[in-house]
Amino acid sequence: MEKLEHIGIAVKNLDQANALFAKLLGRNHYKIEEVVSEGVRTSFFDLSGVKIELLEATRADSPIAKFIDKRGEGIHHLAFEVNDIAQEIQNYRDKGFELINPEPKMGADNKKICFLHPKSTQGVLVELCEEIKDAASH
Amino acid sequence: MEKLEHIGIAVKNLDQANALFAKLLGRNHYKIEEVVSEGVRTSFFDLSGVKIELLEATRADSPIAKFIDKRGEGIHHLAFEVNDIAQEIQNYRDKGFELINPEPKMGADNKKICFLHPKSTQGVLVELCEEIKDAASH
Repeated sequence: MEKLEHIGIAVKNLDQANALFAKLLGRNHYKIEEVVSEGVRTSFFDLSGVKIELLEATRADSPIAKFIDKRGEGIHHLAFEVNDIAQEIQNYRDKGFELINPEPKMGADNKKICFLHPKSTQGVLVELCEEIKDAASH
Repeated sequence: MEKLEHIGIAVKNLDQANALFAKLLGRNHYKIEEVVSEGVRTSFFDLSGVKIELLEATRADSPIAKFIDKRGEGIHHLAFEVNDIAQEIQNYRDKGFELINPEPKMGADNKKICFLHPKSTQGVLVELCEEIKDAASH
């Protein structure tokens, strides 16, 4: 695990949240990206190298919709950068952590991602993410 | 607001959580500090300049005990570094944010802190923190 890459925050309305976080963080979001497979529309703010990712559900069965139904808006996950996600999945399994998705999947921001289950991480939903470096592969 | 200073995580048992986060983050906590006035015992991990602060309640009326009773263990707050907390409190008030404590108070790690109410920040408990630079004052 190299560093904190971003913090994911679940919001009900991305446009309204973008305006509020611009006021809070003193800067505007720099991109919006939809991840159809995950049922989310995301926006990104850069805060000295750590990103804030706002997440809005695009359908009722999106994990973000379920999260908000259960817990309300708020911090959803912490994402840590790794160099080799396949190897890290094996490492974390060997250490006794439970994976939500044992195979990496595509996330926003040109990343392969997987999640550790919060029941094995003290209630914190942890994402591991690897930047896809080969432009030909995406 | 300069940068993300730390992420606070509420845990039931600090010793057990320190062991788990050492496995998760691949490094040990570097200090433990109690803040008697807040009813918390904290530990800190350094992750390339961003800190992870674990928080354990030391009494039943601690804000951390109340948080865990209501929501379970997990991410509690995001803390952003500011240079002049008194001025930032005024700035955030002027922008329409609600302060939990309108006067700065002492937090862990030699910081003056205040919190924005999560109902004005999309469910995210936001801490502003200013490092106390004058060694004579603490």
